[in-house]
Amino acid sequence: MVTGFDPFGGDKINPALEAVKKLDGRKIDDIAIVAVEVPTVFHESIKAAVQAIERHQPAAVICVGQAGGRTQITPERVAINIDDARIPDNRGNQPVDEPIVPAGPAAYWSRLPIKRMVQEMHKAGIPAAVSNTAGTFVCNHLFYGIMDYLERRAPQIRGGFVHIPYLPEQTLANHAPSLSLEMIVRGLEICAVTAAHYEADVHAAGGAIS
Amino acid sequence: MVTGFDPFGGDKINPALEAVKKLDGRKIDDIAIVAVEVPTVFHESIKAAVQAIERHQPAAVICVGQAGGRTQITPERVAINIDDARIPDNRGNQPVDEPIVPAGPAAYWSRLPIKRMVQEMHKAGIPAAVSNTAGTFVCNHLFYGIMDYLERRAPQIRGGFVHIPYLPEQTLANHAPSLSLEMIVRGLEICAVTAAHYEADVHAAGGAIS
Amino acid sequence: MVTGFDPFGGDKINPALEAVKKLDGRKIDDIAIVAVEVPTVFHESIKAAVQAIERHQPAAVICVGQAGGRTQITPERVAINIDDARIPDNRGNQPVDEPIVPAGPAAYWSRLPIKRMVQEMHKAGIPAAVSNTAGTFVCNHLFYGIMDYLERRAPQIRGGFVHIPYLPEQTLANHAPSLSLEMIVRGLEICAVTAAHYEADVHAAGGAIS
Amino acid sequence: MVTGFDPFGGDKINPALEAVKKLDGRKIDDIAIVAVEVPTVFHESIKAAVQAIERHQPAAVICVGQAGGRTQITPERVAINIDDARIPDNRGNQPVDEPIVPAGPAAYWSRLPIKRMVQEMHKAGIPAAVSNTAGTFVCNHLFYGIMDYLERRAPQIRGGFVHIPYLPEQTLANHAPSLSLEMIVRGLEICAVTAAHYEADVHAAGGAIS
Repeated sequence: MVTGFDPFGGDKINPALEAVKKLDGRKIDDIAIVAVEVPTVFHESIKAAVQAIERHQPAAVICVGQAGGRTQITPERVAINIDDARIPDNRGNQPVDEPIVPAGPAAYWSRLPIKRMVQEMHKAGIPAAVSNTAGTFVCNHLFYGIMDYLERRAPQIRGGFVHIPYLPEQTLANHAPSLSLEMIVRGLEICAVTAAHYEADVHAAGGAIS
Repeated sequence: MVTGFDPFGGDKINPALEAVKKLDGRKIDDIAIVAVEVPTVFHESIKAAVQAIERHQPAAVICVGQAGGRTQITPERVAINIDDARIPDNRGNQPVDEPIVPAGPAAYWSRLPIKRMVQEMHKAGIPAAVSNTAGTFVCNHLFYGIMDYLERRAPQIRGGFVHIPYLPEQTLANHAPSLSLEMIVRGLEICAVTAAHYEADVHAAGGAIS
Repeated sequence: MVTGFDPFGGDKINPALEAVKKLDGRKIDDIAIVAVEVPTVFHESIKAAVQAIERHQPAAVICVGQAGGRTQITPERVAINIDDARIPDNRGNQPVDEPIVPAGPAAYWSRLPIKRMVQEMHKAGIPAAVSNTAGTFVCNHLFYGIMDYLERRAPQIRGGFVHIPYLPEQTLANHAPSLSLEMIVRGLEICAVTAAHYEADVHAAGGAIS
Repeated sequence: MVTGFDPFGGDKINPALEAVKKLDGRKIDDIAIVAVEVPTVFHESIKAAVQAIERHQPAAVICVGQAGGRTQITPERVAINIDDARIPDNRGNQPVDEPIVPAGPAAYWSRLPIKRMVQEMHKAGIPAAVSNTAGTFVCNHLFYGIMDYLERRAPQIRGGFVHIPYLPEQTLANHAPSLSLEMIVRGLEICAVTAAHYEADVHAAGGAIS
């Protein structure tokens, strides 16, 4: 299962959503991908994703968001328990330094094989790297919320977050880097297949999880 | 006619060459594209391109080179009469602050419709911008040499230079921006068609050329 | 108390160390600053810093390290429980995906007033911003180790980590951004005074700490 | 003689002007520096600088402007004969692809010892590099206009342009690189002394000039 955020700010499309929509219904070997749209709203995004998890009961969940300015597809290593928004979400919420889950731990590791996902994307010629921060806006929020849900309710399901760069058409008027939709879709497909077949990297299975 | 440099340094392929090869033989409307390989060597590159111009008698010449680190396809505005190499070329030449054509003017404007090329690429969703410097290595050298030849021998032929970003597979191990080969090829095709159909922007036709 | 790493790699000086040395012995109002050198070595760095804490019993500890490529002084928000080294430390250790404290939590928040430190630096005209990642090398390692020590042994002491940019003389041969030693020293002094006078931002005092 | 532009856009100060003002009246060995303010306006800037040249009869003229986003002090190599403004100047002029001097050559080389200026700044620990483009706004406009004047009326006077980065206080709210005012002033002083003592680099004295 992959999730993508609905359009945000004044934009008519959200590239993360466009990318995951292209994956919806794809079958690779024994894996079937289902795409889910989630709102760019604090808390509602977690609710929508959790409902979809409970409905689809997937082997793995990959939430996808955009990180404008990055040059690579970046599986995130860690979600932190804080909302610190520089701009409002799609409902006007703008939390500053608030915990996502008041009684939750400071951070959750991704439960995806992030290093192997990067390796597999590199084999396919796709720029990719592990990232150590998903920020403190709705992306990190959803990431943390999903990891918290999986930790407490569905420890058998793998889950995590992958950031993608701008699409080329978003960068016409600036000098920001971009990656083509085709390459992003191929990269996310590789992420999905890798996540279905492999457990998280060793470190995430160890005591470091907390 | 489009030119691309042969592999440089220890590399086995040169993306500029790969891109222009894909264009070789293409026919769009009344335009036929021919691709020519030139060596990454001071002076020899100019010789090879001039010979090809005399053989093919094209309506327009677009030389293509790579500008690692750029995010967009960048038609160059101006070629300057200087070689200032930080690394040796493929024959070991490393000129420092030497004129390309000792009696030549300080600079030549591109004779391509660079603004319109950028507009047409934008319409197609391709990141593009006019650049004001082609550097001082073999790219600028070939650009200047071709413009000098056209100025003196073939003023009816349009000509200029376009820089392209890295390909994705060149950026796996770093954080440099890239553009897909498909998008680069599409961008160069648009450049070629635009160059065949339109004269250089007004400024380049005016007194500023000298 | 401020700490700085000893020279690393082939370098003869470490700018973080140079900066904190300038602060050694300074007295501002009722605050006395003491500087401590720590080795750029996994685990040994933590040991050296802990020994100094026990000797000096400071009100606050600020560990300082260099983040080449950054443009601002960046107080770090969170330390994560993982070592993932792309290069060896000064003793040749190169851990990959290993927990720093096997039974420790995934992350610790900084116990410094990081937002206020940024505000105070801005008032003084110094480029500064909160950072959400201290990386996964010795900087994050020391940060996590110190927070773990303070959490368990000295909860009354404030502590955290601040990354600084390159010094100008380190960037002569490249195009990396830098900040002058004078400005870095002034920025760290402001950090020290602010840390001594104010508690951590509210979020870090709340349930989010875990 | 050094020139700096007056405040531009809504800004109350212009760092280039602040920097050159600090140099006004300084005497180093046998060199006396005089600073001149010029308006950020097409053509008027050239007029003001030319009047000051005729009044002061300096051995060398260094025009200084800001290039936000650069990390180093960058002596410019070449001025090109074109105005292509993306925003209006201080009088609302916004020329697009117009020649600065209709009958002038496409470009003029700097008549300053740009390589040696960079070397001397490096010796003093100041980030510096030769730049190959001064853009197409008022900076390049003044640069070209001054070089055109010197070429035709005062060939014995050395002249050129140096771009400087943002000051730290301009970058508080963004992530742009900066250099301290002290370092910029020291760098410009070195440029002035070097320009007074040395002729332009060999290439600029050769046939390549025009």
